[in-house]
Amino acid sequence: MNSLKISHEKGVIMNLQTPRGTRDFMPGEMEARKGVFATVERVYERCGFRPLETPAFEEMEVLTAKCGEDVVKQIYRIGDSSYGLRFDLTVPMARVVASNSSLPKPFKRYQIGPVWRRDEPQKGRFREFWQADVDIVGSGEMAADAEVLAAACDALSELGFSGFEVRVNNRKLLDAVVEKAGVEKTKAGAVFRALDKIEKIGEEAVREELKAKARVGEKEIAKLMEVTKISGSSQKKLSEAAGMVSGNARGEEGLKELTELIYLFGKYEVAKKCSTVVDFALVRGLDYYTGPIFEVKIPEGGVGSVAGGGRYDELIQLYGAPPTPATGISLGIERIIEVMRARKADDGKRRLVFVAAVKPEFREYAMKVVEEFRKAGVPAETDLMGRNLRKQMEYANSIGAGFAAVVGEKEQKAATVTLRDLASGKEETVAVSDAAAKLKG
Amino acid sequence: MNSLKISHEKGVIMNLQTPRGTRDFMPGEMEARKGVFATVERVYERCGFRPLETPAFEEMEVLTAKCGEDVVKQIYRIGDSSYGLRFDLTVPMARVVASNSSLPKPFKRYQIGPVWRRDEPQKGRFREFWQADVDIVGSGEMAADAEVLAAACDALSELGFSGFEVRVNNRKLLDAVVEKAGVEKTKAGAVFRALDKIEKIGEEAVREELKAKARVGEKEIAKLMEVTKISGSSQKKLSEAAGMVSGNARGEEGLKELTELIYLFGKYEVAKKCSTVVDFALVRGLDYYTGPIFEVKIPEGGVGSVAGGGRYDELIQLYGAPPTPATGISLGIERIIEVMRARKADDGKRRLVFVAAVKPEFREYAMKVVEEFRKAGVPAETDLMGRNLRKQMEYANSIGAGFAAVVGEKEQKAATVTLRDLASGKEETVAVSDAAAKLKG
Repeated sequence: MNSLKISHEKGVIMNLQTPRGTRDFMPGEMEARKGVFATVERVYERCGFRPLETPAFEEMEVLTAKCGEDVVKQIYRIGDSSYGLRFDLTVPMARVVASNSSLPKPFKRYQIGPVWRRDEPQKGRFREFWQADVDIVGSGEMAADAEVLAAACDALSELGFSGFEVRVNNRKLLDAVVEKAGVEKTKAGAVFRALDKIEKIGEEAVREELKAKARVGEKEIAKLMEVTKISGSSQKKLSEAAGMVSGNARGEEGLKELTELIYLFGKYEVAKKCSTVVDFALVRGLDYYTGPIFEVKIPEGGVGSVAGGGRYDELIQLYGAPPTPATGISLGIERIIEVMRARKADDGKRRLVFVAAVKPEFREYAMKVVEEFRKAGVPAETDLMGRNLRKQMEYANSIGAGFAAVVGEKEQKAATVTLRDLASGKEETVAVSDAAAKLKG
Repeated sequence: MNSLKISHEKGVIMNLQTPRGTRDFMPGEMEARKGVFATVERVYERCGFRPLETPAFEEMEVLTAKCGEDVVKQIYRIGDSSYGLRFDLTVPMARVVASNSSLPKPFKRYQIGPVWRRDEPQKGRFREFWQADVDIVGSGEMAADAEVLAAACDALSELGFSGFEVRVNNRKLLDAVVEKAGVEKTKAGAVFRALDKIEKIGEEAVREELKAKARVGEKEIAKLMEVTKISGSSQKKLSEAAGMVSGNARGEEGLKELTELIYLFGKYEVAKKCSTVVDFALVRGLDYYTGPIFEVKIPEGGVGSVAGGGRYDELIQLYGAPPTPATGISLGIERIIEVMRARKADDGKRRLVFVAAVKPEFREYAMKVVEEFRKAGVPAETDLMGRNLRKQMEYANSIGAGFAAVVGEKEQKAATVTLRDLASGKEETVAVSDAAAKLKG
């Protein structure tokens, strides 16, 4: 969001800012982002997920079939057409599944891409931002929930995170709690949205919201709060909850699902890097969850949750498909990139060698050396400006090249380069092939 | 562009088509596209180019500063805002350069991403399509033109193409030809746009257009046509052209640039895979080219040009920057993907192993085996539906798995799998680690 305004040649002031809430990603930042995306994709692919890509815009009726009013207001319309920019990656996926009934099930897909919301921009919150979703459509088994949760944890682990906390809960169980508390079913959505904020705004504020917005009475609120306060080990929590929901078929099913999910997830190796905890205060605001819900937190940077998701067995049929169970998890990829950037002790050097010719007559040899490096897969470039040696070295430093390979008469004759580590300043004269091998390794 | 319309639960018919001229990329297709993008990026990176990413939409005044009326009409506006979806990747790059005056020069960047044009969709032409641009900003040297041209050819070569024809020309030379033919300078743009079509619509139609649209007289047309007919070797063409433009400073400069570009490009190894020809009929329609222009053709599929570009030294200053030389080339990535798809003899098998449990009690062992494969980097998955063996094998085939690893009592006891090649049907029972090593290789 550069704030420059420039004077146009015709005398008009041109606004060179990116649109509010959007960003340019300059090369250094973009390289870091691409690295994160590539790691996540590699992990998802080895877990058998496949990429899907859908248009940037969709029919408004497709977009609005799922989302609440708040989100509808945030959709960027395309001119006066019936299209709007997508605000998430779940809606397009649901449309694809509904309109391709012959897709083999389970359909395991991932999608990483930008979405757009005309939200009020604030620190770390943008109008154009990337989502990274992984979903399994067509399986109602807890094995599918465990698989998406493990895939997300595996991706986080490959990104260098560890010691994360996996929090799990179940919407069927919460439904039963709401029912048992004597709250009407129609208020369940409002109750969930209020409870979801407990960590952010505190218990008192949630009580207020339950009273004012959800219109729940004092007695019912007390009942609702009970479940969020169950403490101790996951084992102890599960048995206390069993008592609370006993006799309620939906609640018992939720409890069974929760127990099974924890068991199955525990079979993945990545589970050893996680502490998996039952958290009855975990609600997740979205209305459409129908079963297991989960969140992953990392200990770093006070960023809280970096992944979240759950089962949504009733969403896809909104798009005319037969009842189709589905579960998925979304990585908070923008937040992850933020944390990684803060964590990294980066010396600003790139894996790039700049080949500098001491005089113009060695430019052709420099070019040959560049080609040798490139053939070995080592990013390399040489002067394209007819610059002298000093200016070439300044440029090499300004673009963050890790090494310079200086060539002159001596080097040309001996088919060598004088390789300088631009971080340490150390120099050595070596054969071109040795230099390439060294930088490749 | 699925044509399904579905009946909404509320009785409304929902349109599940993607918007006109846009596409879903299903997993198989998306994997192929991602492979192409990754190859191009790898080549560009080893040539020292760096990624840039910019927002999907820009201020309309930024978008329209460069483009002609035809393109303005094709811009998708965002609601009633001052924004529009980008229609190419050059405009955003020019804005970034103009608003970041401290960028080290030359600035070597690549960008691959979608652009949007409300054009009339037709075979192979879409309203949302991907561009792959590579540009060097800040160098006026022919070495920069040779570098972008070589990078593009290198990318095509890595994609498996060969025997391509590189056609080069120079706008300064064409300017001189137009001037020498006695055509007013103001008509040059219209003349170039007409000449650009010579291969597509033939000489007669071009003569008609020059007469009707560019309002050029018969005598001048005859002169203009002369240069397009110069034939023979590039060497012979260059010397004939020298005669035509002699005494015209701009023409002589263009000729010198053309000669130098051919020389410098010839120093790259990839030039050996190309036949580089001077083509005075090569014009390239865009008004903003100022020097060398080039195009790359492949012999396959009758698709013609798969890359094209040139030097545009006057574009970036439109955005308020000081005069900034620049050159670049754009890969026709959609066309390339099309040709590659037609070329590939694909058996539809993926590098994926499906681990099938013969009975439910071996599902946990199957899961362990899956983890072994994944750890080795081999994409693997197992049943998430509680299916019997036959159904599991059907699923494995339906998703194009290359191998199935069947596990039962015998395998569990011996820590082995029975590995079946799903293309050939061949089976062998091997240790899990051996199976992983085999599929990894």
